[in-house]
Amino acid sequence: MNTHLLLVDCPDEPGLVSKITGVLYRHGLNVTSNHEFVDQNTAYFFMRTEFTAEEDPEPLVPEVRSILPQEARVRLVQPGDRRIVVLASREHHCLAELLIRHAYGELGASIVAVLSNHATLAPLAEKFGVPFHYASHEGFERPAHEAEIHRLIEQYTPDYIVLAKYMRILTPEFVSQYPSRIINIHHSFLPAFVGARPYQQAFERGVKIIGATAHFVTHDLDEGPIIAQSVIPVDHSHSPADMAQAGRDVEKLVLAKALKLVFEERVFLSGNRTIVFD
Amino acid sequence: MNTHLLLVDCPDEPGLVSKITGVLYRHGLNVTSNHEFVDQNTAYFFMRTEFTAEEDPEPLVPEVRSILPQEARVRLVQPGDRRIVVLASREHHCLAELLIRHAYGELGASIVAVLSNHATLAPLAEKFGVPFHYASHEGFERPAHEAEIHRLIEQYTPDYIVLAKYMRILTPEFVSQYPSRIINIHHSFLPAFVGARPYQQAFERGVKIIGATAHFVTHDLDEGPIIAQSVIPVDHSHSPADMAQAGRDVEKLVLAKALKLVFEERVFLSGNRTIVFD
Amino acid sequence: MNTHLLLVDCPDEPGLVSKITGVLYRHGLNVTSNHEFVDQNTAYFFMRTEFTAEEDPEPLVPEVRSILPQEARVRLVQPGDRRIVVLASREHHCLAELLIRHAYGELGASIVAVLSNHATLAPLAEKFGVPFHYASHEGFERPAHEAEIHRLIEQYTPDYIVLAKYMRILTPEFVSQYPSRIINIHHSFLPAFVGARPYQQAFERGVKIIGATAHFVTHDLDEGPIIAQSVIPVDHSHSPADMAQAGRDVEKLVLAKALKLVFEERVFLSGNRTIVFD
Amino acid sequence: MNTHLLLVDCPDEPGLVSKITGVLYRHGLNVTSNHEFVDQNTAYFFMRTEFTAEEDPEPLVPEVRSILPQEARVRLVQPGDRRIVVLASREHHCLAELLIRHAYGELGASIVAVLSNHATLAPLAEKFGVPFHYASHEGFERPAHEAEIHRLIEQYTPDYIVLAKYMRILTPEFVSQYPSRIINIHHSFLPAFVGARPYQQAFERGVKIIGATAHFVTHDLDEGPIIAQSVIPVDHSHSPADMAQAGRDVEKLVLAKALKLVFEERVFLSGNRTIVFD
Repeated sequence: MNTHLLLVDCPDEPGLVSKITGVLYRHGLNVTSNHEFVDQNTAYFFMRTEFTAEEDPEPLVPEVRSILPQEARVRLVQPGDRRIVVLASREHHCLAELLIRHAYGELGASIVAVLSNHATLAPLAEKFGVPFHYASHEGFERPAHEAEIHRLIEQYTPDYIVLAKYMRILTPEFVSQYPSRIINIHHSFLPAFVGARPYQQAFERGVKIIGATAHFVTHDLDEGPIIAQSVIPVDHSHSPADMAQAGRDVEKLVLAKALKLVFEERVFLSGNRTIVFD
Repeated sequence: MNTHLLLVDCPDEPGLVSKITGVLYRHGLNVTSNHEFVDQNTAYFFMRTEFTAEEDPEPLVPEVRSILPQEARVRLVQPGDRRIVVLASREHHCLAELLIRHAYGELGASIVAVLSNHATLAPLAEKFGVPFHYASHEGFERPAHEAEIHRLIEQYTPDYIVLAKYMRILTPEFVSQYPSRIINIHHSFLPAFVGARPYQQAFERGVKIIGATAHFVTHDLDEGPIIAQSVIPVDHSHSPADMAQAGRDVEKLVLAKALKLVFEERVFLSGNRTIVFD
Repeated sequence: MNTHLLLVDCPDEPGLVSKITGVLYRHGLNVTSNHEFVDQNTAYFFMRTEFTAEEDPEPLVPEVRSILPQEARVRLVQPGDRRIVVLASREHHCLAELLIRHAYGELGASIVAVLSNHATLAPLAEKFGVPFHYASHEGFERPAHEAEIHRLIEQYTPDYIVLAKYMRILTPEFVSQYPSRIINIHHSFLPAFVGARPYQQAFERGVKIIGATAHFVTHDLDEGPIIAQSVIPVDHSHSPADMAQAGRDVEKLVLAKALKLVFEERVFLSGNRTIVFD
Repeated sequence: MNTHLLLVDCPDEPGLVSKITGVLYRHGLNVTSNHEFVDQNTAYFFMRTEFTAEEDPEPLVPEVRSILPQEARVRLVQPGDRRIVVLASREHHCLAELLIRHAYGELGASIVAVLSNHATLAPLAEKFGVPFHYASHEGFERPAHEAEIHRLIEQYTPDYIVLAKYMRILTPEFVSQYPSRIINIHHSFLPAFVGARPYQQAFERGVKIIGATAHFVTHDLDEGPIIAQSVIPVDHSHSPADMAQAGRDVEKLVLAKALKLVFEERVFLSGNRTIVFD
């Protein structure tokens, strides 16, 4: 008995749950978990169904599709390890968290390679036996550097690309090659700060909370759909460096949590929002 | 168009979602929200379906029942104000929170009466125009006092009884008259403390977190199914009185949150656990 | 024996703690709590000393001042109820929280009056016997309306003015009349949203956290020094109205917490940041 | 200029802060941070002073001692890396967190060795170049096994011993060799559970929060003074295994946080409580 996931999204109409689960029932499949949600704002329907089957359930798909609106998106996937390429720069905390979880089978994915525009983290990746590619951005125009990154990524055919404190801005052209497949983590503050040295700004403003946001990357780097967020309290005795350390602790856990949700196919996109079946 | 809730729980078997939603679909009803869960531990199925209907959907119920296992529990209810009686003693914080929410239509229930074994809170209830009954326990055997409380409650025919810091222990006999209909709030600590003066004990142990638990009351007062929990950080500079104040802040919000979940019929019982569709 | 607070801030120099506590010691006073902090960024020193005395300790002040740098700010105050005027508009949650705490002696202040540009909350203030003044802004130029608010405030000689969801923007001229004496609460998001209908924007962006910030009001309304912040998790199933309700719960507790810190003289200003001795 | 820490605890009496800081001032030392606290419950005084000095400040100590009550404990230490031995069993998460922080200089300590009663974690320690000693408990009486652990520890002369999910109970005899020098992390629940399989019990009870507590080990294993605590929310959809994973995430961060506080000498003992100057 293997576990499968049926993932559906389409414009809402009456009877969708009944019709979809009806197909599964007629095929004698055992549903172990089911989530659905209608975004009232857009009248769109989302459904994630986990079921077990002895034989290949692929024949289900056209049958499900036939009862749904034309625009429906239907996917049948197996849970289990995704292949990911991690991009990082010089900060180790997120990459280390992912490598440890990868090493102990807790990530829901295999890290097939680490790419970086610095050599700093090579020893860390190597400790865990993961290929590390150093592609410096120095002396390259942005398109040329991105082409190299793209070439390196492609040889690994990953399911997702994870930006684990990768400090280069990606062009819309690059991002458009991986729609809804790039996940980023970045620090967040109340209020938000624009410009350089955000922890220095947060310190000068005396914020009492440091946060982190994991999100899909769209053409607008830090503005893609949010997958997970968390915060940690700080106070006046925290220097900018202390705030940055507090931020790192929350960043690594939020990133790991978001990835788990994505790899388990619990995250759907609804415009610029996510529906998260956790 | 009125909104209705169909609430089902029964032993799990294949096709339940398809069958139940099929009935709704055949009746032309519009499902606006649907949650289901199978407790793998007990192989029990739980479902909460919100739908809108122009006419009385009562005829659905026998039809749904006919396709479910014999032991199935099927309820059709309308959302909207429940009737509650609040029992309190001398502490005001939980009662005040509920009265404010009641006054502004945010409680999901109407407080039809406040009962107390002290007169202390009478002025508070009266500010909000809610009947207050003072039934001192002094000079009464426990059964006699409980009989009086029971008599007072019964004249209001409430849906639920809320213990908002009611400091009398209820007998199993009393509790059994209101199965899954009494909700209590109490402070919680890591670790737990037994015996008197828990905040003094928590202080002496130097706990760094103060918590609160809202739960259904069963025969074993503080051991019923947990509906909601939350915590608040404290430190060595908090006196026992400061800890108690911190505890009050978390208690009142946890109680209000738990009640909202219960009144919206989002809470199912599975043995001594709750399934909460939030 | 009465409790007193000695509050000092001045440019840092060696020996400040020794000199200040030396004066207290020579006067035979019993220090019960002492906090000091040097802001390394600005080389400024802050100190809050709580002590008990049988006689009037006022003679201390010139002696303390004589050993400190010229620019030192020295205040000797007694803890205990501050007088506050609360400004509100139509939302009840913050005002209700403050009124309840006021009624039960938990606010650290007496609410001497409530002012509003709407009549909506009059019944709430009246329940608690607090004078309510309705000063509509309609038909008035902003300076004229503010002059009326100022006139109403002044007749109560409050220590602090609390904006408990007062939805009018205050001019720099008004604010400059109450330096570091106006405290505001406002919702906060990760990321921040500008413009109208912030909860609608937060919903469309799919935020997973809703926050609140209590701060002193300076000429730039929402940009003054932050006193306290907190957050609450939300998810895709929260409508904008649900998010607003979650926001209200966190706003009222953050405001109450910030006020307690201010009224106990635990909050110092260091440029645009606060030093909070909690 | 080196940084030093002066750590004092003694029965409270008037003038302590003035006297102690007076000694530092007369020696021309620059205090950069100062914390003091009087435990009103026990009338005990605690003080942590951070200062910079060009020369060896050791001569201060007898001078400070001479002005304090007889029972005073005075320590002068330098901040900076402590030496720690980590004891673990089979779970990797806490050890991995400490090794990563150690490798990047974020732990405030050097892990000089890892000891275990299982061989499981040897490859992990070796990745980070830390000596690993496997001392199985099988076939040994408890005293004999502890003697071996003691022998292994002693060859590294550590400042602290960290139990990073070490699943053997230590005897009072063993613990008494390292007073206030053994730190443990363990899961915590609201309510607490005794006996085997706590996550299974937590699941069956339907807890909504999973916590972790870091504490000093005294003769009563899980009852020593608490250093830090934190929690993470869970719900009915979490299996016991999911709860355990959530617990691991909170355990590793709480342990790391507690160790940083201890290594920076911010934690004082007051009976069975801690005073934490953070």
